[in-house]
Amino acid sequence: MVDLAKLADEARAQADEPASLVMRFSADEQLAMDCGASLAPWQIAYQTYGELDADRRNAILICHALTGDQHVANPSPVTGKSGWWEFFVGPGKPIDTDRFFVICANVLGGCMGTTGPASTNPETGRPYGVDFPLVTIRDMVRAQAMLLDRLGVSDLLCVIGGSMGGMQVLQWAALYPERVFAAMPIAAAARHSAQNIAFHEVGRQAIMADPDWAGGRYLEQGSRPRKGLAVARMGAHVTYLSESTLHRKFGRKLQSREAPTFSFDADFQIESYLRHQGITFVERFDANSYLYLTRAMDYFDLAEEHGGILARAFRRTRTRYCVMSFTSDWLFPTPDSRAVVHALNAAGGAVSFVEIESDKGHDAFLLDEPDMFSAARGFIDAAARMRGVT
Amino acid sequence: MVDLAKLADEARAQADEPASLVMRFSADEQLAMDCGASLAPWQIAYQTYGELDADRRNAILICHALTGDQHVANPSPVTGKSGWWEFFVGPGKPIDTDRFFVICANVLGGCMGTTGPASTNPETGRPYGVDFPLVTIRDMVRAQAMLLDRLGVSDLLCVIGGSMGGMQVLQWAALYPERVFAAMPIAAAARHSAQNIAFHEVGRQAIMADPDWAGGRYLEQGSRPRKGLAVARMGAHVTYLSESTLHRKFGRKLQSREAPTFSFDADFQIESYLRHQGITFVERFDANSYLYLTRAMDYFDLAEEHGGILARAFRRTRTRYCVMSFTSDWLFPTPDSRAVVHALNAAGGAVSFVEIESDKGHDAFLLDEPDMFSAARGFIDAAARMRGVT
Repeated sequence: MVDLAKLADEARAQADEPASLVMRFSADEQLAMDCGASLAPWQIAYQTYGELDADRRNAILICHALTGDQHVANPSPVTGKSGWWEFFVGPGKPIDTDRFFVICANVLGGCMGTTGPASTNPETGRPYGVDFPLVTIRDMVRAQAMLLDRLGVSDLLCVIGGSMGGMQVLQWAALYPERVFAAMPIAAAARHSAQNIAFHEVGRQAIMADPDWAGGRYLEQGSRPRKGLAVARMGAHVTYLSESTLHRKFGRKLQSREAPTFSFDADFQIESYLRHQGITFVERFDANSYLYLTRAMDYFDLAEEHGGILARAFRRTRTRYCVMSFTSDWLFPTPDSRAVVHALNAAGGAVSFVEIESDKGHDAFLLDEPDMFSAARGFIDAAARMRGVT
Repeated sequence: MVDLAKLADEARAQADEPASLVMRFSADEQLAMDCGASLAPWQIAYQTYGELDADRRNAILICHALTGDQHVANPSPVTGKSGWWEFFVGPGKPIDTDRFFVICANVLGGCMGTTGPASTNPETGRPYGVDFPLVTIRDMVRAQAMLLDRLGVSDLLCVIGGSMGGMQVLQWAALYPERVFAAMPIAAAARHSAQNIAFHEVGRQAIMADPDWAGGRYLEQGSRPRKGLAVARMGAHVTYLSESTLHRKFGRKLQSREAPTFSFDADFQIESYLRHQGITFVERFDANSYLYLTRAMDYFDLAEEHGGILARAFRRTRTRYCVMSFTSDWLFPTPDSRAVVHALNAAGGAVSFVEIESDKGHDAFLLDEPDMFSAARGFIDAAARMRGVT
């Protein structure tokens, strides 16, 4: 039996005092947010790998996805599992920490030590809950920029990320073009589609339907909306996989039995797999953060602030881009990436486009995908050469 | 405010004494079910349109989908809305009730008057709830066959249905080949895919996570798992539409406002649309029936009872088939229909295949689709001619 009060305490501790590097900003170092709020004091939790070189030219920023965190290449202090991009980032890896200074920060609104709804509201001494201001992708990027300022990293060799991380990459290039030498958005889009908003809304309604959500005040009650968050995660997880992965991995195979039970037990392997995904997620992720970060993705529409014309977001860009998609990704399908490429073409940007053959769906960007690795290695190495990184 | 106790009472009344024709089977007219149970007494609610001719050769059976009912071509006594296939069925319509005797029955396990979990268990005097035996598509078909026996309809000119209705069509042709002259499965499959099982499982977990589900005993408590069922419906509804429909109909349009609210309100039109779909569904459908019918679809695998070889399900078939799919249906995509066609080819069956260009997703089979209507009219008229129906 899970000790919910203990989980709630751990979640609050993780939000305020994470097992991570933390940069703290005082009451007079406000973060101006799109919703109009000014957040202060606030903090951003991050990890770094490798060394910043003397010229300060070898910094790479990695932006994580919806349920990711700053622990790219080291074990998670929460789950003990290895870093979420350990195939990709490390000594001798495509993002080579022997050569590059790699930074990854937990996003604003997250639950791993950057200020978010699970953090203590200094005005009340209680977790913010849904009193936390709505976060946008741009707010996340502004927070990262303030972290980089503090770290003395004026500009980036490359900013790279998948899914919601890819949205941040595009926002970085649009908001701080002079700070981004190269950008690599993977399995992303310049705006969230109606279908994706719809799936997110179902997940949010599942969380808010759970009485244990308690109007967002569950942490101070020592509780968690476990069932609602598990349902949200299960539904989202289906969208991360491709039909062919599901068919190959599970098909209609039964779980530890010869015949169906004629009950609502998890007869099929896909059912027990999904239930497991839901249950384990609850132990590592804050439900309110899930509400905030899905909302941030829904609000993302890079063209909107440029009169609806995406190319204008990249006007006079000197950043080099490598846009990447996966054939079986139906959540952020290739046409979404192509729209970014077309806009960059229209803006006269330097862009290459890689569509990777994979049957692993949206999740492919998190998996051991050799084609992704070699394309990224080539792109980053070329950028490093051009920029004179040794 | 919805009066839940009143809704619960209405649901029980609808299950036991529906505003519909009802055929009742006594304690010694058992329905033998796949799970091993023998259901008795039991009843089946149905509607008919048109007249059975003297030769008894003009009967058409319509099988409804997951959330459908027997009210094909007359207003629903529950919602007051017109029949769910009124475009398709009626005097002079493609399924012409001036010429054909049309029957549609509420499925076994449903909540519109055929025995199901909302019906009163004669042994306890309380609603069955989750004591109701698990239903299969084959059980539904057996129940329909017993109804037809009572009506004196020994065989059918055509059996036709979409989605779960199409599964019943295929099961009819496989189980009672001598009783089916022509069969038209629309937007269906011979087995439910892993992805579809996954989506159904998410919906079931949403219902069962709702404390008001009360272990399935909500009706006798005068309650309903409204929030859970609404979430299930919202999630399912997304899968019924195509990305292009969602984009065209809603895109990222805001709901009655100029700018986003920076809150969890339904800012986007797609969100308020989905919430509306969820709320209205709760008023017309029983949550336990939703569990049972989704489970029946998950269990459906016509090849399984034939050693995994679908063609054997149609061995020596003399039925004429018209298999139909829609280009933008990603829930029951065209390859699922092609698999049926290939099996029929292998079995030497007479089959035509129609893939209809539509951007309306799975829902297309319920909509005003002229190409579907003309193909169906041609197929049914040809069958009628061959069978000598005047």
